[in-house]
Order: sequence, then structure tokens, then C-alpha cells
Amino acid sequence: MKSFSSRLTAAIAARQTPACVGLDPRLASLPPALAPARNAAPQEVAATFTRFCRDVIDVVAPLVPIVKPQLACFEALGLPGMTALADTIAYAREKNLLVLADGKRGDIGSTAEAYADGWLAGPWAADALTVNPYLGLDSVEPFVKVAAERQAGIFILVKTSNPGSKDFQDLSSDGRTIYEHVAAGVEQLAARTAAGEAYGAVGAVVGATWPRQLDAMREAMPHTWILVPGFGKQGGRAADVRGAFHADGLGALVVSARDVIFAHARPEMNNGLTAAQWQTAVDRACRDMIDRLAADTPAGALK
Amino acid sequence: MKSFSSRLTAAIAARQTPACVGLDPRLASLPPALAPARNAAPQEVAATFTRFCRDVIDVVAPLVPIVKPQLACFEALGLPGMTALADTIAYAREKNLLVLADGKRGDIGSTAEAYADGWLAGPWAADALTVNPYLGLDSVEPFVKVAAERQAGIFILVKTSNPGSKDFQDLSSDGRTIYEHVAAGVEQLAARTAAGEAYGAVGAVVGATWPRQLDAMREAMPHTWILVPGFGKQGGRAADVRGAFHADGLGALVVSARDVIFAHARPEMNNGLTAAQWQTAVDRACRDMIDRLAADTPAGALK
Repeated sequence: MKSFSSRLTAAIAARQTPACVGLDPRLASLPPALAPARNAAPQEVAATFTRFCRDVIDVVAPLVPIVKPQLACFEALGLPGMTALADTIAYAREKNLLVLADGKRGDIGSTAEAYADGWLAGPWAADALTVNPYLGLDSVEPFVKVAAERQAGIFILVKTSNPGSKDFQDLSSDGRTIYEHVAAGVEQLAARTAAGEAYGAVGAVVGATWPRQLDAMREAMPHTWILVPGFGKQGGRAADVRGAFHADGLGALVVSARDVIFAHARPEMNNGLTAAQWQTAVDRACRDMIDRLAADTPAGALK
Repeated sequence: MKSFSSRLTAAIAARQTPACVGLDPRLASLPPALAPARNAAPQEVAATFTRFCRDVIDVVAPLVPIVKPQLACFEALGLPGMTALADTIAYAREKNLLVLADGKRGDIGSTAEAYADGWLAGPWAADALTVNPYLGLDSVEPFVKVAAERQAGIFILVKTSNPGSKDFQDLSSDGRTIYEHVAAGVEQLAARTAAGEAYGAVGAVVGATWPRQLDAMREAMPHTWILVPGFGKQGGRAADVRGAFHADGLGALVVSARDVIFAHARPEMNNGLTAAQWQTAVDRACRDMIDRLAADTPAGALK
């Protein structure tokens, strides 16, 4: 098997887009055609999540290289939710999609290794996992080790898209923000695991809501894939994420979740459709995102 | 139902100890009497974890107020591991133990709420959850909201026990370390949720490996329960955790995991026992921890 970075590069080249669809199933937002009865049992809700995620994957699998299941949405349902998650990951892989498990895990020593063991090409069968760096670089090492061994990847939180990311990430120490200190550690790990390739097994998460910081982070982390959440609903536009890319259109993955998977709720995407045709709205929204990235960012070079 | 803090206080008073047993099942460390065959299927390993955790709970339930399942150990096995986790939590509750889910979760907005929804008195039925603050105070708010609504608790990482906690937590900004900035936020949330009680719904995690910092953190966070991991195997001794307590013996929970649950591997605890008697070693190690806390910390005042 090839490295995560080279598989990701190949998948992006094949679909000619760095768009990543977030799979964040939420009961209150499901297309009415699928929504279970009020007060449905967790098993029933989880079965609906499974159906919904499979239907979304059917639409987006030919269009994008990778999907990002949000673990919290599945965990919220308890055990039946985890069954839905396992099914969703298996179905995405069957449809030739890469899978990034968004769990923001983080712990120390053998506990960090247990998370890595479970998620990275382990029983949960994800290609990559998001990781929280608060506990320090020694807490990240077990994830890096397992990722490197299994040709998987991790994406470490650097500067997140929410306003509150200022509280601790933006604090300044020795003339650099905390997220810049984290970025320096991420780039070292990325360079160390690149093994002659352009990017390493360690990526970074930087929100689409911070265009200037994306520019600076792209420069500070040349060997690092940057995952950019917050596109669409959270306010980020295509022009805002431009800075995350290298000139060849590689180096970044841009995520949209709700704007794509719940496109039935967007009048401009749902125009002329019946409730049963919600997948057409997903298709339109996914293509719209891809087109906007191609038009306004270096991702246009992928065509 | 009473608040998490008052239930915790009552449970500590009833058992006369602030000892918390970490449930971190690991295949390589199980008592030989329970260990499954080499290359056992995940289902079989998970069934052994369930059996092991139930057997440990049978021993410690009369002795301690609370147990802390380490989610990573269960997640590492995939779906069967989650079934083992659900069983372990249910069995602990049945035995009248409080349950602190150690997941170090953290995310923003509705995603954070999904985690809180799942773990805090939700389908996973934990009384409390550990939370990672890297994403900022707005990322913690949904956990606080759900905890307050459901009489549950959260414990926010402040200064973790590993050496690498220096990398980002110890960086200095405006004359205070990052973990001191986090602690200030935690104390505000604890005070806000205390509702006239001594402690709020929001606690802190400070490692047993940092005795001086424990003193300072106790002072900086008067309304905050402090969860102290790293006792035993990670090097912390009873005298080192003294500073986490108020004079009445309350305000801290001290965790030991491996030293207690894998006590069969400690010659001084296993002395004279057969392999089948591994629970006796657990009993001895748990009582030893309780005695040491009573002798060398303000927890002695609970007797």
C-alpha cells in the first residue's frame, strides 16, 4: 500500500478537486423524506443515519476524493450510532472514497496508541484521524508512529474555525502565538514522515474563517496537508481558503458538511425538486462547491 | 436528582476516600487467568474486557466512590469494544459507583453538544466526561450547558501528567502559563455552575506529577474539583497530591489505574496468591492506595 499522502494526492488528481464532504448526520436536519417518527428509538435513528450516509455517499463518491465522518454525531446515539458509523466507513471505502475520521482524539502514551490503533487502519478502518495537540508533542508521537506504520494519516488541530479559538490558540508566547508553536511541531513531524514525498503523514487543521492565517500557515508548513473546515455554513468563502494551497492546487483539503449534505434546506439548491429528490440537491451543492473552489483557488490547476 | 458535585461529595463521604479506579483494560496486561488465546478475535477480546471490568468493579465498588473507564482502550477494539464499554458503565452504575468517562473530547458548537449529549447522562450514561480545552471556551460551553441541565459534570484538561505537557501548556503569555489561562476559565465556569454549593459542575485535570502546580491550581480554582491522574505508575506519590485537596479532604479525586487493576503483576500485592486469586491482588492494591491517601493527604480527614 502507498502512503496516505500519495493516496490522497492520487484521489485528488483523479477527481480534480480537493473538496471533502463532511458526514455529520443530525436528526433535526435530515431530509423530510428520510426523517424517522418523533421519539424514534435510538436504533431507528441510527438506521436512518446509516441510510442517509449511504445515500449521500452514492452521490458524492464520483465527485470528491475523501469524506469526513464526524464521530460526535454517531457517538451521540450510543451503541447503535457506532454501528451506523462502522457501516458508513465501510460503505465509503467500498465506493473508493478515502475516510478521515473526525474525532479530535488526544491522550498520552499507551492511551494515545490505543486511539491510533483503533482508528488508523484498525478496526474502525479510517485512513486518517483528527488529533488534538493540547497534551503536547509526546502525546502526538504514538499517533505518528501508528500512522507511519500503517500508511495512514493524522491531522492535528492548529487554528480552529470558531471565534473562541482566540482564547488559548492566539495567546502569544516568545513572539509567536500558541497555534504557531503547534504549527512548528506539526511541520517537523510532517517533514520527518514525508520520506522523499511532497507531504508527510501529519497534517494540520486550520479554519476557513482565518484567511490571513491560512496564508501564513501554508508558508510555515510546506510539507503539511492542511484540512480546512468552516467552508460554507461557518462563513468561509472560496477566496478565503486560497492561501491553504500550493500553486499546483495541492496541499489543502476543503471541507463542507451541512451545506452539502443538508442541501435540501437551501432554496437555491432545492429549486424545482420534490422531497424525494433530496439527493439531487446534494449533487448540486457538491458540484457548486467544487466549481467555486476551481474558480477561486489554485485547485483550478487540477483540471 | 442532585448535582454531580453533591453526588460525588456524598459518595466520597460514604467510602471515606477520594480514590478513583481507572478502568483501562489492555490485552497485554490482563491477569493470566483471564487472558484470551493469542490471535483471539476482537469479539473474544472484548468479552474478556467485559468480564475483567466486571470482576474489578466487584472488588472496588465497596471501596471507592467512582471509576474512570478509559474510552481509548475500548475504542481500540472497534464495535465489540464499545459494547464492552456500555456493559462496563451499566455494571458500575448497578454497583452504585459514579462513572467518569475519560474521553478527552472537544469540538465546537453543535458537535460539542453531540458529544455532551451522548456521554453525559445520555445513551452512554456517564456521570461525567473529561474535556480538552484547546478549541477555546466557546467549545466548552455546550458541555457545560448539557452538564448543568442533566446534573452531570465535566473535567477540563489543565496541566496533564506527561513530560510533553510543557510543550504548549507551559508556554508563558502575559505573565501566565497557558494552563493558568485555562485554569482561570475553568474556575469561572465552576463558580458559575456551583449554584450555592461548594463546587461547580466543571472540574479540572492536573497530573500527580506536578506537586507544586497542584498547590497553585488548588488555590486558583477554589470551586473546582481537581481530578489527579498519574498516581502510582506514572510516578506520583500520596504526598505529591496533597496540594490538590482542601483541608476537609474534599476537592480532589486521585486516580490509579494500572497499579490497581493489574495488581497481579506487582510482587508485593500478589504475594502468596494463585493466578485465579488476581482479584485479591486488586483488593490489596486498592486498599493500599486508599490507606496511603488517608495517611499522607487531607483525605485522612474523611475518616
